[in-house]
Amino acid sequence: MDINIVVVGLGVIGGSYAMALREKGYKNIYAIDLNEDSLRKAESLNIINKGCTEGKKFLKDADIIILSVYPELVKEFINNNKNLFKDGCIITDTTGIKGVIVDDIKKSLPDNVDFVFGHPMAGREKKGIDFATSEVFKGANYIITPIDTNKEKSIKLIEKIALEIGFKKVKRITPQFHDKMVGFTSQLPHAIAVALINSDEEDRDTGSFIGDSYRDLTRIANINAELWCELFLGNKENLLEAINSFEVEMNLIKNAIECEDREKLIRYFNKSSIRREKLE
Amino acid sequence: MDINIVVVGLGVIGGSYAMALREKGYKNIYAIDLNEDSLRKAESLNIINKGCTEGKKFLKDADIIILSVYPELVKEFINNNKNLFKDGCIITDTTGIKGVIVDDIKKSLPDNVDFVFGHPMAGREKKGIDFATSEVFKGANYIITPIDTNKEKSIKLIEKIALEIGFKKVKRITPQFHDKMVGFTSQLPHAIAVALINSDEEDRDTGSFIGDSYRDLTRIANINAELWCELFLGNKENLLEAINSFEVEMNLIKNAIECEDREKLIRYFNKSSIRREKLE
Repeated sequence: MDINIVVVGLGVIGGSYAMALREKGYKNIYAIDLNEDSLRKAESLNIINKGCTEGKKFLKDADIIILSVYPELVKEFINNNKNLFKDGCIITDTTGIKGVIVDDIKKSLPDNVDFVFGHPMAGREKKGIDFATSEVFKGANYIITPIDTNKEKSIKLIEKIALEIGFKKVKRITPQFHDKMVGFTSQLPHAIAVALINSDEEDRDTGSFIGDSYRDLTRIANINAELWCELFLGNKENLLEAINSFEVEMNLIKNAIECEDREKLIRYFNKSSIRREKLE
Repeated sequence: MDINIVVVGLGVIGGSYAMALREKGYKNIYAIDLNEDSLRKAESLNIINKGCTEGKKFLKDADIIILSVYPELVKEFINNNKNLFKDGCIITDTTGIKGVIVDDIKKSLPDNVDFVFGHPMAGREKKGIDFATSEVFKGANYIITPIDTNKEKSIKLIEKIALEIGFKKVKRITPQFHDKMVGFTSQLPHAIAVALINSDEEDRDTGSFIGDSYRDLTRIANINAELWCELFLGNKENLLEAINSFEVEMNLIKNAIECEDREKLIRYFNKSSIRREKLE
């Protein structure tokens, strides 16, 4: 537990990482963020030893670097700091798309470090360290998309940490399959939630006529616009394919309603019920 | 608390009603259900005094009748029992659609009873008394769709009971507006959830690659097929209109992704975020 961990980006995910690592007994946790308030807050919560707005100070001693920044900034971070990393440093990220960053980063990665691409499938609709909580990782899925230069022991270490801080399952898949899956399981639901609430008519006091179904389906419509814009556009083809498949199913339902075809509706409902039961 | 209440249909909603009423101190609660096991279970939980598979026994003394049965059975119940009701009896229902039943029932309703149409906007994806819980009503919305023959004091009584058992808000609206709203807030989310999970490809271990967004958006895809078939077809026009409006918004998002139009995407996300913040 004496290894030096540096969290880059103390938002809701970075903050949650620091919190969860501290709870598990990691002694040396440092953070880099442009926001002084976030750093001071994390210091006063004692979830980091020290924070700094500038990288040099901590990076040269870092054994593990956890990048919890927007996708575009992951590349920028590597490019800006490639001469600062300690030999044998393991870098990991928390980015929700892999295809657009993995190849670029592979090209610019210095030889003395190992980048294990990771995606903690956990998040909150709110942003910022004020909403950080180690609870968010409990029971969640964690994905690693190995690259050919990864050392097995680096991957194992990132897996071990994921399980330590509460993730239930860690899977290794290719960046391509990752992006196809999250286009469906994560980005499509966000597109749906946004479309659902935006299709409401104004000024009809909708809040008085909702049950848990509408609450659940629109929770993520409160969305970090900049981040999700990057994720949507960075996974364009997969997301469009997922939306199209969804629309095909929606049209089946629509046609069954139009034709008052009870049998078909029941068949779709039974299919969805069985799938949901099996899901977890 | 000495009034006689008869719950007709001891499923998840009827059972939850009996439970919640008992917790609030109602002493005389009876139930009618075709399933003997449900009746015996409710008796042993002491959430009803006595259950019976046949109506006559309890109906003649009932001050309040709560119908928690499928929409089609509400009409049937009134027609089959119209000579049995006690003078001044207040009947209410829990049906998720109103247009298709209100007019029919108005026609066949005997003069000595008052039917206050109600819709508790609470439910669970599981069916049957085993999943009944008084918690389900806590903080939920309750809708009443008055008809011209309703006595104000009957409506007030149903409102009072709704608030007693935990509903947060009770609204009075027309059956037409009710159906328009629930087409959007309840049936559309169910159609979306079913279409979403049915659009998954098979055999790719989706459960390992999901976060809370997919969990939340598909929870209600585990659906009571018979009931929701009735609700969808009984509110056909409103639901189709809601699906169409949703598809318009989804196409806006799709086009913005196709054209990589960041500005538009950000605009949709900001709109949805503001709406979600304001919702409750």
